[in-house]
Amino acid sequence: MPVIWINGSLMEEQAVVISPRDRGFTLADGVFETMRCHGKHILWWSDHLQRFHAAAELLGISVPLDNETIENGLEGLLAYAGYSHSALRLTLTRGPSSRRGLWPPGDPVTPTMVASAGPLLTRATVRLIIAQSTRRNEYSPLSRTKSLNYGDSLLARREAEERGADEAVLLNSAGNVACCTVGNLFVRLGQDWFTPPVSDGVLPGLARERLIPILQAKQRTIAAAELPLAQAAIVSNSLSCALVTELDGLQMPDHDGLEDFVTLYECP
Amino acid sequence: MPVIWINGSLMEEQAVVISPRDRGFTLADGVFETMRCHGKHILWWSDHLQRFHAAAELLGISVPLDNETIENGLEGLLAYAGYSHSALRLTLTRGPSSRRGLWPPGDPVTPTMVASAGPLLTRATVRLIIAQSTRRNEYSPLSRTKSLNYGDSLLARREAEERGADEAVLLNSAGNVACCTVGNLFVRLGQDWFTPPVSDGVLPGLARERLIPILQAKQRTIAAAELPLAQAAIVSNSLSCALVTELDGLQMPDHDGLEDFVTLYECP
Repeated sequence: MPVIWINGSLMEEQAVVISPRDRGFTLADGVFETMRCHGKHILWWSDHLQRFHAAAELLGISVPLDNETIENGLEGLLAYAGYSHSALRLTLTRGPSSRRGLWPPGDPVTPTMVASAGPLLTRATVRLIIAQSTRRNEYSPLSRTKSLNYGDSLLARREAEERGADEAVLLNSAGNVACCTVGNLFVRLGQDWFTPPVSDGVLPGLARERLIPILQAKQRTIAAAELPLAQAAIVSNSLSCALVTELDGLQMPDHDGLEDFVTLYECP
Repeated sequence: MPVIWINGSLMEEQAVVISPRDRGFTLADGVFETMRCHGKHILWWSDHLQRFHAAAELLGISVPLDNETIENGLEGLLAYAGYSHSALRLTLTRGPSSRRGLWPPGDPVTPTMVASAGPLLTRATVRLIIAQSTRRNEYSPLSRTKSLNYGDSLLARREAEERGADEAVLLNSAGNVACCTVGNLFVRLGQDWFTPPVSDGVLPGLARERLIPILQAKQRTIAAAELPLAQAAIVSNSLSCALVTELDGLQMPDHDGLEDFVTLYECP
């Protein structure tokens, strides 16, 4: 029986009720984190927690439980779920609102905090496209935040599937490379690795932060026209890294010698 | 007892269960419409329905009920709610997903369709600010769609409250005027009315469509620097219109002779 951790308690998933007035459901008024877990161990937990609090603060949502209670709750969920390797998602919304409209949310509003775990499914390689259906908004702080507003990523991901690929690169409004729908992008141009700066509309990924020193990658704006010139590319997120084997239907030339980063995800 | 119309049935709100795996809750994977109602009559119903279907099609979500069933269901909800004037919200999400991640959503996924009504609360005047916290993304088709992705509007609306105003104008990535957080903007410059074109990142509002001929408004790009020069401004949405009395703390000079558009919302 799948279980959910909700507002401090473990419950059978079937018994969990999200209100139709929950502002996470009506207005994407919430944030989340997705974490890689090995048994009860949550990889990069303190960094995830820090980013989670920063996102909640940006939206002005009070985290209703203290850090220790959250950690204990998530470990309890992982212990019950019993996976050796899992993906854990922690979501916080502003909660059910007594009134309609954007703001004020009505009072009293109790935030909804919910977590679930599933088996870790990763892929070693991805075929990429450059999304044409939409772009990422570097003028919004949400482009640097794991908020619930995943609409643009969804459009781009569906476009990828329609065009026979696995994942999409989103450009920003200036037409430069931002990131993928669920990961950061690193590209090798000549002998050097590059990744776009966060100011270009990029989520500050925890794997990105670790790959920058490993690959000695430079942060600089990457024009869309540079992508087809890349000798290699990697898509990274908190669950895994993948090598890019194809871009817009063309083979990437080189996939050798890129295994180093896999150790990044090993359990300490 | 408040009631909700969900997947074709009227239910007491307390009994309605949204799954924590509903992609409307986890990923803002859905669309909605907000409609003004007089008794059981839904103002501009066929236009709302058309826009609703267009939004669902953009996201690739199948509307699970036929138009007549939806209309009958909403009328039943309005009859039960018994308001003389109300705001009705119809929401459609891709539904609960059996798997995590963006795409594919897992199968079978049954869309969630839910509607609720509340008393119509409108205001005749609004104090505006130009949002500095975020911008609207005219490169995303979601800027022209009533999707659940309201994060940027929420940030701007909170900023408005913090700065002592009621509503915020969002600029687009080019720094031109797009629209407000829950309405379109019309401004009078000299003797003429203007409103930004939909391509500037603007929801094609149903009141907007009707106000354009009434005000003989021209659609053209409006620079942020033009706003303080406006003699008058109106914010419009499907529930009501409001006169702008203040912009960034400065009084708007003229509010006379703008009552004509109020008849727009009269029940036929």
